Amino acid sequence: MDINEKVRSICKAARAAAVAMAGVSGAERERALYAFADALESRTDDVVAANAADMAAAAGNGVPGPMLDRLMLNADRVRAIAAAVRDVAALPDPTGRSESFTRPNGLVIRRLRVPVGVVAMIYEARPNVTADAIALCVKSGNCAVLRGGKEALETNRAIVAAFSGAAGDILPAGCVGLIDDPTREGTAALFTMREYVDVLIPRGSKGLIRAVVDNSKIPVIETGAGNCHIYIAPSADPDLACRVAVNAKLQRPSVCNAVETMLVHRDIAADFLPRFTEAVKAYGKPLEIRGDADVCAVLPDAVPAAREDWDTEYDDYILACRTVGSCAEAVEHINAHGTRHSEAIITRDAEEADYFRTYVDAACVYVNASTRFTDGGEFGLGAEIGISTQKLHARGPMGLEALTTVKYLIDGEGQIRE
Amino acid sequence: MDINEKVRSICKAARAAAVAMAGVSGAERERALYAFADALESRTDDVVAANAADMAAAAGNGVPGPMLDRLMLNADRVRAIAAAVRDVAALPDPTGRSESFTRPNGLVIRRLRVPVGVVAMIYEARPNVTADAIALCVKSGNCAVLRGGKEALETNRAIVAAFSGAAGDILPAGCVGLIDDPTREGTAALFTMREYVDVLIPRGSKGLIRAVVDNSKIPVIETGAGNCHIYIAPSADPDLACRVAVNAKLQRPSVCNAVETMLVHRDIAADFLPRFTEAVKAYGKPLEIRGDADVCAVLPDAVPAAREDWDTEYDDYILACRTVGSCAEAVEHINAHGTRHSEAIITRDAEEADYFRTYVDAACVYVNASTRFTDGGEFGLGAEIGISTQKLHARGPMGLEALTTVKYLIDGEGQIRE
Repeated sequence: MDINEKVRSICKAARAAAVAMAGVSGAERERALYAFADALESRTDDVVAANAADMAAAAGNGVPGPMLDRLMLNADRVRAIAAAVRDVAALPDPTGRSESFTRPNGLVIRRLRVPVGVVAMIYEARPNVTADAIALCVKSGNCAVLRGGKEALETNRAIVAAFSGAAGDILPAGCVGLIDDPTREGTAALFTMREYVDVLIPRGSKGLIRAVVDNSKIPVIETGAGNCHIYIAPSADPDLACRVAVNAKLQRPSVCNAVETMLVHRDIAADFLPRFTEAVKAYGKPLEIRGDADVCAVLPDAVPAAREDWDTEYDDYILACRTVGSCAEAVEHINAHGTRHSEAIITRDAEEADYFRTYVDAACVYVNASTRFTDGGEFGLGAEIGISTQKLHARGPMGLEALTTVKYLIDGEGQIRE
Repeated sequence: MDINEKVRSICKAARAAAVAMAGVSGAERERALYAFADALESRTDDVVAANAADMAAAAGNGVPGPMLDRLMLNADRVRAIAAAVRDVAALPDPTGRSESFTRPNGLVIRRLRVPVGVVAMIYEARPNVTADAIALCVKSGNCAVLRGGKEALETNRAIVAAFSGAAGDILPAGCVGLIDDPTREGTAALFTMREYVDVLIPRGSKGLIRAVVDNSKIPVIETGAGNCHIYIAPSADPDLACRVAVNAKLQRPSVCNAVETMLVHRDIAADFLPRFTEAVKAYGKPLEIRGDADVCAVLPDAVPAAREDWDTEYDDYILACRTVGSCAEAVEHINAHGTRHSEAIITRDAEEADYFRTYVDAACVYVNASTRFTDGGEFGLGAEIGISTQKLHARGPMGLEALTTVKYLIDGEGQIRE
């Protein structure tokens, strides 16, 4: 079959399944996910064997080490994936809540929280994302079309087979489809399936997300880009500022909510910056600081920053650092260079904190706390779909509710419009 | 200046204004809109003169009559536009509400309702939409980039000048920008301004909306396409069914919430269809019925329907009509041909009503009432931005809240992530 036709038939089946899914209760969906988790464990050997085939091919194709590590499954990792599926299964059902109001003409309008319908996800060669995507979609009453990295093809087939085997009697056929064509044409075809797919969520690198945003005709939820800042104001408690800045930069530099640039008020730079580098030393991790002239004058080890440093998400043990003359200047820098993800100020001045909160345009604005808390789990949302850096539909950490929409149910007794 | 650069500078100015707008209170925005309404009235002569120039050019270019009528302004129409601006100004502020929760680590997370930021609207040569868009955006704390139909260029300039003159001292400069280049390049340039524009809302014909959805890199809220159905079940009260069906089809056939196809259960077709055509006659409007074989057998005046009739939004005095053997068949037809806008069932069977509500995939599902109620005003939302037929962000009639998003404000005392 032509790849376009193949992708269309997967999406069409998911759309049909989404209609049938409206009649499946939350309890049944939960049961299907527990069955899926059990099946993953009972089929561990199949999944690990499929993964071994993927690993061998990937190694032969020169796939780099870190990517191989993310691709690799063993029995322990399969158990961990099954446990994560059970965690999602146990969450509260995000659908079914409603509120009603009665209009003067007697119409009763009920606003009901329902699944979005068909959710497509595009991601890299990480088999755990396959199971996670299935769990999140099914839990929220959605059907899923999955497109994982081609290096994980056999593993993904085995995971989806485990799901279909376990959930086949409980959920409508076709409710989870895998685009298992390894070529780019599969992705290109998916981008055009607006008729069948309600939302497309890319999960992975900036390059992947960019490509999806640029090419998809399906509405996209953009996630993940994080050029985050921390601003140290003159009134900041220096110990608190060091502790928070070190945490925001170094606790896990590879993630999107880690800080990439520190802004320090000029009046305290000479005092604060050496304290900060000592705190970094005490933390025991390396850190390259790329500073403006002021910063380099205070810190002899700092490297002069280039223009592009202000716009770079290092995801690494590197920190861009510059001084500013005011909170307004800090806010201006952040709004010019940030990705509207997570921004922090360290200050003891309530008025300044309020200024920062008001004028910084970001999903999450922190006062005296680490940006690393921008996370579904830390926000108490249970599961996390991703962190939205766009403003439509969902912003900031997205829980299961981000996979729902509303439906208006209107009951009358023959009302007509005059 | 190159058109791309011109559009970029308008969008960039709107983005900068959006940051400043965060510091403008709802009361000030309201005051700015009242001043705008006053200015429209005091500048009536300027606006009507500009419109006369547009009208002359449009007539010279052979613009058709109905379009000329939508373009035309006189003193009465300007007064009506000003009154509509005041109506929006008087609505409650959709921003500023918040809810807070405290995490176990002591972080206080506040979820604050804020403006989206920069809203672009693309619409046709209808000057009232220009004023309406300004009112909706400013009321909700947003900045606006407007792209109206080229035939209304001078009128739009005059309206935006009235706004800028009146609101210039109250609101940040550049908060409303008009792309007043008459070529298609202006629109194409706008589509790429994702860096500055948060959402793009097309308002107008299906062709316009389609072009925007297909080409915009900015997230779009799709509105307006309405291939709506009414299903007459065997248990329907025939008088009620006639009244509602006539209203849904004929009260205003040109709008998106009017019914285009009527589905009738086979068991009652012979009785119901003649009653319906009599009700149509009594209503005093013409109606062409395009029916399947069953319908044509009962109604000698019906025209045989072609395949494409089931997918056509006539917006006219035409009704497609077919019989079905069950509610399931009606739902299947609707999900296959509908645009997920508004769908109705007429029935006295509660179980059947529930089936219809559950399995029809649409923004608004009616039981025993006319689809014509899908409307911001009828739903009690005050202003209406449009009727969203997509599932992300907003679904169904959109009020001012559809132009808002959330921002998380997190206050700590030095919390770090372990």
